[in-house]
Amino acid sequence: MPVGGTPLLPVPYLRRAFGMNNLWVKDDTRNPSGSTKDRASLLVVAKAQEYGCETIATASTGNAATALAAIAATAGVRAVVFVPSTAPVAKLVQMQSYGAVVLPVDGTYDQAFELCLQACREFGWYNRNTALNPFTIEGKKTAALEIAAAIAPDEPDAVLVPTGDGVILGGVAKGFADLKRCRLLRRTPRLVAVQPEGSAAIVNALRSAAKTITPVRGAASVADSLTVETPRNALQCLRAVRASQGAGVTVSDSSIVEAIAELARLTGVFAEPAAAAALAGLRAALEQKLIGRDERVVLLITGTGLKDIPAASRAIKRPKPIPPNLDAVAQRLRNSSARRT
Amino acid sequence: MPVGGTPLLPVPYLRRAFGMNNLWVKDDTRNPSGSTKDRASLLVVAKAQEYGCETIATASTGNAATALAAIAATAGVRAVVFVPSTAPVAKLVQMQSYGAVVLPVDGTYDQAFELCLQACREFGWYNRNTALNPFTIEGKKTAALEIAAAIAPDEPDAVLVPTGDGVILGGVAKGFADLKRCRLLRRTPRLVAVQPEGSAAIVNALRSAAKTITPVRGAASVADSLTVETPRNALQCLRAVRASQGAGVTVSDSSIVEAIAELARLTGVFAEPAAAAALAGLRAALEQKLIGRDERVVLLITGTGLKDIPAASRAIKRPKPIPPNLDAVAQRLRNSSARRT
Repeated sequence: MPVGGTPLLPVPYLRRAFGMNNLWVKDDTRNPSGSTKDRASLLVVAKAQEYGCETIATASTGNAATALAAIAATAGVRAVVFVPSTAPVAKLVQMQSYGAVVLPVDGTYDQAFELCLQACREFGWYNRNTALNPFTIEGKKTAALEIAAAIAPDEPDAVLVPTGDGVILGGVAKGFADLKRCRLLRRTPRLVAVQPEGSAAIVNALRSAAKTITPVRGAASVADSLTVETPRNALQCLRAVRASQGAGVTVSDSSIVEAIAELARLTGVFAEPAAAAALAGLRAALEQKLIGRDERVVLLITGTGLKDIPAASRAIKRPKPIPPNLDAVAQRLRNSSARRT
Repeated sequence: MPVGGTPLLPVPYLRRAFGMNNLWVKDDTRNPSGSTKDRASLLVVAKAQEYGCETIATASTGNAATALAAIAATAGVRAVVFVPSTAPVAKLVQMQSYGAVVLPVDGTYDQAFELCLQACREFGWYNRNTALNPFTIEGKKTAALEIAAAIAPDEPDAVLVPTGDGVILGGVAKGFADLKRCRLLRRTPRLVAVQPEGSAAIVNALRSAAKTITPVRGAASVADSLTVETPRNALQCLRAVRASQGAGVTVSDSSIVEAIAELARLTGVFAEPAAAAALAGLRAALEQKLIGRDERVVLLITGTGLKDIPAASRAIKRPKPIPPNLDAVAQRLRNSSARRT
């Protein structure tokens, strides 16, 4: 099952809208199960097979579990996944269709995570948990390798990364650091962590120059994939952002929802809330002068909008049906043009 | 926006389940908007731009409209799309997110098609309608070119193609015919049209050796993408199937729904009902001795399961949430193992 190798899109209409001539979208919606998490799961499943493990478990807000379920299906191993029972229905149905044992946990993602840790110890399963299994970082770093390869011989100035646990950002940082170590990059780009206002433990720490993380009790956001009380990879993520001279920005749920439609309309990439947060974060980073409009900037779009249709619905007005006649078409178009002007 | 170039997967676990050593899945769920229709829309939008047209219209059961909306967004042209108001919500939300003017028609796909024809004449729009715009065939034929290239120097014996209007099959036939004409294939594969029992105008004609089509009034199926009363490309499709020494099979809605989960579990490919129909059709074709288990066979998987989560839900039993403790995990696993044995 081919994973990664996703396109880095030049997005001319988004460039025009933002007045940025060097803006790209890394379209990771094109992975097999529709998210960046496939990169990590491919490597973890390969390692599990190398170690002779027949069951692999993970806790997840949804995408990592779906990715594990998909890759496990191609490899003939069993996936046991712990997810908050409030995960989007599309993710739950998708992971179960792949044949995973799905355990929806009546609780938060953080509780699902702890339960998965206990279960792996108790039952001797191979643990894919993010931030705990180092191969998730190694898998996700391939996104950075591909970005660098696509932009070469130029080099990216900044990459905006939607951030929950901080593992995707940690992986991207590792990828760029590896390239620099190999002298394939002169300098690593600034990494900008984008978090929802309601789930911003890492960005809060960046802003207060804290060395540790204060959990966000009752973390909540439309971006389910970024909703976490205690980010599991917080310290490595903080170090990576700081080492890159990067920053953190927070974005409101309404700006995330608007970014879904804006990104789709201007690039043809339909993103889930967590992924569209990268675009909302770009606007915030420009306003805060964290990014210049002339810089080479990449948005990492981490998952497809088809994973959360209810969220995308909030950004659009669903049109009423018309009767099958030409007058109705003409009238609807007049109204549509009137609204545009 | 890269379109096509999707993987041809060797699917070892599906091969084992079917006792077929030369079975492949052409995973067209990996196109940008999630369906084969992106192949047609890319070419149609390019031609519209060549002709200087600023508005492109189409009628669609959902995927073609979504594909047009996505590609139009990358090209800065306007898409006006006519769809039955009963199309899956995910498709409606996705196409609208891309910024298309969406006209949900209170009626069947066939009525939406007629209305679109009238509107194109009235308003001077460029018409993408399937079977009417020849570039849809030329776009879709790229799936055949890729299948042949991936299997070369061997050659496929049969390709199963989910069939509604008959345009994907017509395109695939054109691709193989072009390759034969160029002497890049010795012989073209047999094409097997797969239709739902409730929407089988083309297969009915194949079985009765009819030269014309009898419309299926009140056509209905869980596979919305294949539900059409009067297939628009029926005659070319009939000719293509017959010229290839192929056949037609019908599949029940329940076999389609079961095929969604079976395909996902055994290949890691999550398909919408229309696409999973290819797998249901394989079982039917084997039973009817239309295909031998030792032949080289390709299933064309035309769209992602994320487009129709309610349909996928019918194939699985959604698990009840568990409380966040280890006893609950152990108990659920015992029940899960008991069900398996």
